[in-house]
Amino acid sequence: MGLRIKNIDIVTMNSENKIIMNGNIYIENGIITHIGEELKEYKADETFNGRHMIAMPGMINAHTHMGMSLLRNYADDLPLHQWLTEKIWPVEAKLSSKDIYWGSLLSMTEMIQTGTTTFCDMYFYMDEVGKGAEESGIRAMLTRGIIEDRNDPDKKLNESRELFNRYHKASNDKIRVMIAPHAPYTCSPEFLVKAKELASELGTGLHIHLSETEKEVQESYEKFGKSPIEHVYNLGVFDVHTLAAHCVHVDDNDIRIMVEKGVHPVNNPGSNMKLASGFAPVQKMIDKGLFVSLGTDGASSNNNLNMFKELNLAALINKAVDKDALSVKAEDALRMATINGARGLQWENQIGSLEVGKKADLILVNMDKPHLTPKHNLVSSLAYSAYGSDVDTVFVDGKILMKNREMVTIDLEKVKYMAQKQAMDLITR
Amino acid sequence: MGLRIKNIDIVTMNSENKIIMNGNIYIENGIITHIGEELKEYKADETFNGRHMIAMPGMINAHTHMGMSLLRNYADDLPLHQWLTEKIWPVEAKLSSKDIYWGSLLSMTEMIQTGTTTFCDMYFYMDEVGKGAEESGIRAMLTRGIIEDRNDPDKKLNESRELFNRYHKASNDKIRVMIAPHAPYTCSPEFLVKAKELASELGTGLHIHLSETEKEVQESYEKFGKSPIEHVYNLGVFDVHTLAAHCVHVDDNDIRIMVEKGVHPVNNPGSNMKLASGFAPVQKMIDKGLFVSLGTDGASSNNNLNMFKELNLAALINKAVDKDALSVKAEDALRMATINGARGLQWENQIGSLEVGKKADLILVNMDKPHLTPKHNLVSSLAYSAYGSDVDTVFVDGKILMKNREMVTIDLEKVKYMAQKQAMDLITR
Repeated sequence: MGLRIKNIDIVTMNSENKIIMNGNIYIENGIITHIGEELKEYKADETFNGRHMIAMPGMINAHTHMGMSLLRNYADDLPLHQWLTEKIWPVEAKLSSKDIYWGSLLSMTEMIQTGTTTFCDMYFYMDEVGKGAEESGIRAMLTRGIIEDRNDPDKKLNESRELFNRYHKASNDKIRVMIAPHAPYTCSPEFLVKAKELASELGTGLHIHLSETEKEVQESYEKFGKSPIEHVYNLGVFDVHTLAAHCVHVDDNDIRIMVEKGVHPVNNPGSNMKLASGFAPVQKMIDKGLFVSLGTDGASSNNNLNMFKELNLAALINKAVDKDALSVKAEDALRMATINGARGLQWENQIGSLEVGKKADLILVNMDKPHLTPKHNLVSSLAYSAYGSDVDTVFVDGKILMKNREMVTIDLEKVKYMAQKQAMDLITR
Repeated sequence: MGLRIKNIDIVTMNSENKIIMNGNIYIENGIITHIGEELKEYKADETFNGRHMIAMPGMINAHTHMGMSLLRNYADDLPLHQWLTEKIWPVEAKLSSKDIYWGSLLSMTEMIQTGTTTFCDMYFYMDEVGKGAEESGIRAMLTRGIIEDRNDPDKKLNESRELFNRYHKASNDKIRVMIAPHAPYTCSPEFLVKAKELASELGTGLHIHLSETEKEVQESYEKFGKSPIEHVYNLGVFDVHTLAAHCVHVDDNDIRIMVEKGVHPVNNPGSNMKLASGFAPVQKMIDKGLFVSLGTDGASSNNNLNMFKELNLAALINKAVDKDALSVKAEDALRMATINGARGLQWENQIGSLEVGKKADLILVNMDKPHLTPKHNLVSSLAYSAYGSDVDTVFVDGKILMKNREMVTIDLEKVKYMAQKQAMDLITR
């Protein structure tokens, strides 16, 4: 039952950001049982040689819309309004459950290939996403994104409840479910409260978009006389655990509220740049004690679901925005992509760092590359120089999803073929 | 002698950005002889099947410091002054010609692996760089970076002249030389004029850093009462062809001067972010008619020499800075990375686009990947979704430098080993 990874440099991302050079990791029944020196007496069933590799916690993509990968590179370089009204929304209205299944499996394939072991998806036909997660073996937080339907306000909440009953803690607790009212500008105050009450009743958290664009914040002031974050706060929504995507246009009062209520912001730098939304004040949020996590957003506004790319963007852009070369250090960006994501998903007791007793969700990164030569500093290498394509092997729950870059659980050729087929069908439907 | 690439989608980057689906490229004696339909009568000596691939011009890295790759990830997350004075400068002072040779060969390896076919390097011991370029087969613009030595102002200019005599138009005109006074803050007005006169005498161009940081611009106003660009303009330096790296803090008057004199700015978004220098007004420069090119800068401030990464950054960041999702479109970013780079190096008659009569400097990008699925728009795919690791095959002057990701001209293992060895020796020397 036991598995050993030897000769491996280990970036634990534990509370001291401990790094172990040339160590060992032992895994039994999907759990990390030992990290460090060789256990001489122990006979592993399988041993991996980690020479030239770094082991680190699998990345946690804390905010994405996976089915949208069918629209990757479909409608770029358009103004936001035209992009949404003429391209994205008309096509989204035609998305079938089959589209979502293949689009999501395409996204899971890309994520596994680039070192993501857990995603938090907000979309619809979420049963299909759950099915894909079970098949691929990736760890999943499923959240059914709800734009309020005034004609039948309970329908999508009931779908969320059914999704919860079907999937929460399924597959050896590899899948969980949160409630996802889309945003304060697509859900009424009353509906937001109902969504929060459902989350509270089920004992789970909320996933919501907050303060993504300047326009959204302006309109919130016009309509409610306050920022989106203060608006949601006053409704009592933050009384449940909340994962808040984007949080770009937040002021000091917004940050004070998030600190008070323990709100978990997700930084989405790639999407925020591509859609011209702006730059989140990440270092300020970190300084105030917020656990900022990291997500790719959907592939139609990124246009990748590659957490190594996002990690690099997160570590770079706030330096220039803040005019401070120390803003969002490599180590902080790496925490965003791993342990902070786990906190955002209330999963930090099990994932997000390599520690004894935690689930064996980890990746091996091949450092034997020209662009990772010479070796001076592992954390800098990971944040500033490594690519998703350097990920060699991926474990989730102690099971191998990719080995030496070969997909183990996913039929790669079929996924590419079916995703292409569904995408072409979708845009001509 | 002839080579044919068939079944290939071709992104030409010619003046109309023409794209040819499922076409052919014919190459003879290093020159592109035909693009488009199959030539039924022609018998090629070698045929490449380009199925699932895009052919595009090789990337042109218009500003880098290649020897610095030995310091990649050596001293990150430090304030600029401390980084320079305590880390970079003390180590640079100890760099040997052997360090430069192996560091530069490491850089060339990384660049070839990520689709760069031409670089413009500004550093010292440039003979070593020229030697490496001859061995690796990559196209090279060598520029000996000159920080003025007040005790012997002519020494480095003479080195530049010797470099020119030794290498300019060497290796079937695959190597050229420009004159590179480092910056207006490291070279006196008199010296800048001397450098310009040397370039003029030799019939070549100048390569210089201009307006990289706010501090530099402020100090120029304090010392000369004008911006670095106006200062250099008033000296008559721009009377020769000038490639100007960074150009971050430029105002409307600076841009007007650059337009008047046909100065070629190089955008270095990765380095400008990492060092907290800021964001160049790229779209404004494009709108005014400047041919903005793209460069990685050195690996100690990037920390990669990967033009696909730089292309992606260039296409993303100005959107958020300008609050305009149409700023620096995919197509414009791709022109920056290819044909505009060629213009910056005065090489546009031979490279930078795939056109009959031009040198066969081209790359094949493998699109058969999950993150490049589905296929909606080739240019968007290249700028927003593709990675350097998707580059499959690289031709320079019609010769293969990488084939199916296997290095052909470079001993990969030796380069990694020697670069690591020299780097460890260097920092403990």
